[in-house]
Amino acid sequence: MTFPPAPDPRAAPAAAITENGFLGGRLRVRQPARGYRAGVDPVLLAASVPARAGQSVLELGCGVGTALLCLGARVPGLSLTGVEVQPGYAALARENAALNGVEMVVEEADLAALPPDLRQRRFNHVIANPPYFSRTASTPAQDTGREVAMGEATPLAAWVEVAARRLAPKGHASFIHRAERLPDLLAALSARLGSVEVIPLLPRAGRAASLVICRARKGGRAAFRLHAGVVMHAGDRHDEDRESYTLPIRAVLRDGAALPLAED
Amino acid sequence: MTFPPAPDPRAAPAAAITENGFLGGRLRVRQPARGYRAGVDPVLLAASVPARAGQSVLELGCGVGTALLCLGARVPGLSLTGVEVQPGYAALARENAALNGVEMVVEEADLAALPPDLRQRRFNHVIANPPYFSRTASTPAQDTGREVAMGEATPLAAWVEVAARRLAPKGHASFIHRAERLPDLLAALSARLGSVEVIPLLPRAGRAASLVICRARKGGRAAFRLHAGVVMHAGDRHDEDRESYTLPIRAVLRDGAALPLAED
Repeated sequence: MTFPPAPDPRAAPAAAITENGFLGGRLRVRQPARGYRAGVDPVLLAASVPARAGQSVLELGCGVGTALLCLGARVPGLSLTGVEVQPGYAALARENAALNGVEMVVEEADLAALPPDLRQRRFNHVIANPPYFSRTASTPAQDTGREVAMGEATPLAAWVEVAARRLAPKGHASFIHRAERLPDLLAALSARLGSVEVIPLLPRAGRAASLVICRARKGGRAAFRLHAGVVMHAGDRHDEDRESYTLPIRAVLRDGAALPLAED
Repeated sequence: MTFPPAPDPRAAPAAAITENGFLGGRLRVRQPARGYRAGVDPVLLAASVPARAGQSVLELGCGVGTALLCLGARVPGLSLTGVEVQPGYAALARENAALNGVEMVVEEADLAALPPDLRQRRFNHVIANPPYFSRTASTPAQDTGREVAMGEATPLAAWVEVAARRLAPKGHASFIHRAERLPDLLAALSARLGSVEVIPLLPRAGRAASLVICRARKGGRAAFRLHAGVVMHAGDRHDEDRESYTLPIRAVLRDGAALPLAED
């Protein structure tokens, strides 16, 4: 596939592409060298989704497809669909699916205007890793692709609304987001879905959460649940010389394991 | 003081009073033998309040005064005021203040109709341990005093509204509540106050939170913060034969220490 320099401002910003290994090299993911780049967040999101073989999964804003590919690598026999507004990222997502021999449909569309075929479908799981930085609270990113991926052109409540509409009865929505956006995310999820659960991700033991994974169920009636935090790094501070991930997080990132939750 | 049998349905339900030690016996607290009884929750709430000597504190729904007395025992020179709608509990709160040699004003009033002298005051801290059980989701308690204390005659948002109005600029509101009510509490706090923080209280390491302490600041502009959970009990399960509190919680409950928060 060729990745053209982008006259369309919504397209990815640069022709330079890197290829990175995920899940201990089991997955190969091509992404623009500049702009939004997948890190651990889509891997953690994928590891948290309670999907079973044979179910369908829709990712809103799938980027280059990292979360869907990670989920597909952990759970066999899923039907994977991604929606991505930026043509360059959507093309890379398709390319990454082919590169890894994974069947995955990627639609190029805005959340606010999903194509009719998607609007007629219901999914067992809808997942998303919405843009992180509030447009009002941060300076715009230098390049447009990164700006679309990291700004908040679409309000968080709209992501939840689209997810709720696309879920089959009893289907699960799973979001990963910065912990500081938890109040907004909880308000949106509580308004449209039930059985809301939060999994805090703590950078280190005893530290405030940096990320949260929120899960909710269409038609769910269980009480809200705040899970114990999952600690990402061992030790008290960052040691650049060695990998500091805790064992459970290492199992998620390197071996594609499910995110472990101590259940009551 | 005599504690009369209660013809008024809002009064505490029974004449039988017990006296319990709190903070390792440093405080003596008289409360009805039946009905709502103070446990560890008001002690934990008091331990979390960032009050400094000389500041003013208002507790909404102070019951027999446990939280205010605990806070006064930890921070010297506070001006303590409690509001309690149930006359029997309000009378016991006054009695408990006298019993412990603490200056504390207790007003008998409904949150929705605070007396004019209170409506003209602003406080550095407003604290509350609102009733825990949703009236719709649980069967009514056997006795009326317990029903008023544990049912939700007053919606959570109304508690937050009254707290917000009574706070001085930069004043802190501190609430303790069941973790399953976190979405409602966060929505109410985010709508009226800023710099919202959540401290999850986990019954044991790795378990979902049972309680949450939520703190917010009038006019605060800091990002929302989800603190690491504070673990209440050591070990994997309840051992009836011995006290299982973790050391930091034991320091709070026995020695009146502040609730420790690992800060970044």
